[in-house]
Amino acid sequence: MAEEKEVVKEITPQSEDFSRWYIDVVRKADLMDYAPVRGCIVFKPDGYELWERCQQALDRRFKETGHRNAYFPTLIPESFFEKEKEHVEGFNPELPWVTEAGGEKLEERLALRPTSETIIGYMYARWIQSYRDLPILINQWANVFRWEKRTLPFLRTTEFLWQEGHTAHATEEEAREETLRMLEVYRDFVETELAIPVIKGQKTPSEKFAGAVETYSIEAMMKDGKAVQAGTSHYMGTNFARSFDIKFLDRDNQLKYVHTTSWGVSTRLIGCLVMVHGDDRGLALPPKVAPTQVVLIPIGPAKAREEVLARARELYARLREAGIRIRLDDREEYTPGWKFNEYEMRGVPLRLELGPRDLQNHAVVAARRDTGEKLTLSQDGLVEAVQNLLAEIQQNMFKKALQFREEHSYQVETLDEMSRILEEKTGFVLAGWCGDAGCEAKVKETTKATARNIPFDPPARMSRCLVCGQPARHTVWFARAY
Amino acid sequence: MAEEKEVVKEITPQSEDFSRWYIDVVRKADLMDYAPVRGCIVFKPDGYELWERCQQALDRRFKETGHRNAYFPTLIPESFFEKEKEHVEGFNPELPWVTEAGGEKLEERLALRPTSETIIGYMYARWIQSYRDLPILINQWANVFRWEKRTLPFLRTTEFLWQEGHTAHATEEEAREETLRMLEVYRDFVETELAIPVIKGQKTPSEKFAGAVETYSIEAMMKDGKAVQAGTSHYMGTNFARSFDIKFLDRDNQLKYVHTTSWGVSTRLIGCLVMVHGDDRGLALPPKVAPTQVVLIPIGPAKAREEVLARARELYARLREAGIRIRLDDREEYTPGWKFNEYEMRGVPLRLELGPRDLQNHAVVAARRDTGEKLTLSQDGLVEAVQNLLAEIQQNMFKKALQFREEHSYQVETLDEMSRILEEKTGFVLAGWCGDAGCEAKVKETTKATARNIPFDPPARMSRCLVCGQPARHTVWFARAY
Repeated sequence: MAEEKEVVKEITPQSEDFSRWYIDVVRKADLMDYAPVRGCIVFKPDGYELWERCQQALDRRFKETGHRNAYFPTLIPESFFEKEKEHVEGFNPELPWVTEAGGEKLEERLALRPTSETIIGYMYARWIQSYRDLPILINQWANVFRWEKRTLPFLRTTEFLWQEGHTAHATEEEAREETLRMLEVYRDFVETELAIPVIKGQKTPSEKFAGAVETYSIEAMMKDGKAVQAGTSHYMGTNFARSFDIKFLDRDNQLKYVHTTSWGVSTRLIGCLVMVHGDDRGLALPPKVAPTQVVLIPIGPAKAREEVLARARELYARLREAGIRIRLDDREEYTPGWKFNEYEMRGVPLRLELGPRDLQNHAVVAARRDTGEKLTLSQDGLVEAVQNLLAEIQQNMFKKALQFREEHSYQVETLDEMSRILEEKTGFVLAGWCGDAGCEAKVKETTKATARNIPFDPPARMSRCLVCGQPARHTVWFARAY
Repeated sequence: MAEEKEVVKEITPQSEDFSRWYIDVVRKADLMDYAPVRGCIVFKPDGYELWERCQQALDRRFKETGHRNAYFPTLIPESFFEKEKEHVEGFNPELPWVTEAGGEKLEERLALRPTSETIIGYMYARWIQSYRDLPILINQWANVFRWEKRTLPFLRTTEFLWQEGHTAHATEEEAREETLRMLEVYRDFVETELAIPVIKGQKTPSEKFAGAVETYSIEAMMKDGKAVQAGTSHYMGTNFARSFDIKFLDRDNQLKYVHTTSWGVSTRLIGCLVMVHGDDRGLALPPKVAPTQVVLIPIGPAKAREEVLARARELYARLREAGIRIRLDDREEYTPGWKFNEYEMRGVPLRLELGPRDLQNHAVVAARRDTGEKLTLSQDGLVEAVQNLLAEIQQNMFKKALQFREEHSYQVETLDEMSRILEEKTGFVLAGWCGDAGCEAKVKETTKATARNIPFDPPARMSRCLVCGQPARHTVWFARAY
């Protein structure tokens, strides 16, 4: 017991060292452990369940928008990468290679997929002949591999889990629509289920996916003011179709290249959840994805224990019956105080306490993880009260995160201004940009902030490029990023 | 259209060449395609959806029995395999190796997991200290790799999908209970959801999992009389605990090794489904896992088309509303006859036809995939009638498969008898066995049949070993197997 208590105390305060705080939380809340392979982690049950809930919520949305799942091989022949020039340059340095198998040296090296455009492109070329075969709307749930130099649990690991949608269309218009449709699916999912506000926008050319014509992203702000790219959606034009010869006979009897898209989100969303909602007490999980939404803890002296426990079991059964993910912690080897800390640290959105006095008053004490607020609920109508509270917590967490982002967002006219702000503060900075890659590079060099995206819906339109002072072609969100 | 018609006609009859029939069906029913990597396949949406339905049905059962999901790395250091002697001998020849990554040669080769006992054992050693940490009940959904010499779609591929449960317990008794509990979960799942009857039993020592003390299996009979091991559950004793030093401090203050289990089923179940239920018309899918349970096809002359379609859409909406996975095929470029063949080939359990005469009679014609039987249903109460029919088809498919297995099961006293039977017939052969590995090897050498398992509940107890004539220690099911 002493040991576990220390575990909670060990969380470094965010203000002291945000990176250490993050590592402390993901380890102590039991989301992950380091694996004995460079840059790999184990997703422990509480961490993995967050991903499972993301999967369910996303998969439903993918199917509602007409997509089906499929599965393509992990191993990709080296020659495939060489077919798309930008793609190979983007991914080659990060690939792990299988060179031996079944006791023999392979004739051609096989990469562990970093993403599946190439192998899927190859298959689509075989499957698509006529306009009647289009569109192809396929998603894949898979593990992918990128040999990154610096790794960070969930946010950047050698192996991670993700989904990758890959679609092929007869026309540019349809493919562009799909690209934006899936970006909106991501926004809706991340904001609704994860309570994380995001900014939708288009990536600058230097930040595009390797091989894409256009890349769009949703960007989220962490509690240290840094950005995380939470999801991306790419319009590939006919780039991959040309590389893999994906052609179809159109209604007009012309042989044409298809237009393709791809889009993905990954287990880095788990890292986002932690960094957006967590605090010095530990994790804080939005009710919609929390493995445990409610913990019920019996309290009071030993002599009242049996009576309290009997009622606790009743209430537990009632809430569970209603579909609430509730845990009754009636362990005797831990004190209520220890349990309070423990479940706060693990981010359980709502705690219910039940003691002898509550039995008399036909009440339950509820404590919210998001606000710390304590309220007394009647045992009558408890299911509805808890459901309402969970909904309120979900909304409040979104609101708080949005407010935080707004309080940490700035607008600047010049690079000097941006530098000053980013020296003193952390956050997102809106600025005008002429469109020149040199100016963009200068921002990064000076401030370490990168162009996050060109938002669809900026709070203001900036008129001049922050670097060169020429007329701005775009208004861009800049930030330091994970 | 001409082309697609040929596709259906191309299915080789089972009686002519069962292997060719199988390949024809999995390709033409669009379950898979060959990938450009040796022994790998692409799971196309209809094939993958069968796996998704298996996953849902299994995952529910795993969670009901107290298990949680987690995810461990794909890459396993070479040294891990060397810690368990039998394990390394069993798997080493089949491993693909990553030897280069991030532009450098690795110091230690990394295997793509063929199964995860070793890396999970390593992690469990870190997680388990006290009896309070036990049991650990974890399952993983993952891709695994085995560089097999001969491959066959779904049944044996270089990469396949599976789940692997890995549990650790304080006592032998508890671990043995878990091993048998999960075997029963598999039996229930395969018989209830896939309508495939299986034989539960224990593997002979020579057929055990590499590193296990005891291996149990469920065995299914394909339509060519051959066996497929549809699921396995292993009691590892303390073998892996000793190799990976997984010890705990027990209540009695003694440091003890944990007892571990592992259990798995894989995408080979898709191959089983095809080979158990399919026929010369193609695939036949049990309603519980069929991606499309019902197809509704409007028929009749063009002049009645609008009226028929309007009613078809109504009925479609009603059935869909009730949760039935229905497709309305109102495409005009295909004839009803073509569609009938197509959906039979794809294994859709129930076809509904609606024509002008049916409108008059307020009826729908239903055709069962399992029996070919046609019935007339009233449009009133159609939902219930269809639901009942689907339930009946599910049961009938199980009954038919069971009957087939019983008709192709034999009992023999001697190896001669077994040889004669397996020359003329195909199927499972029950025989006595003295327990000597030499006698078991002799059976295989003579008949190519292997010991499938020692059934818990054999139809008879055989008294003598079929090879040596000594008293039988076990009664064993033998069969040729995939």
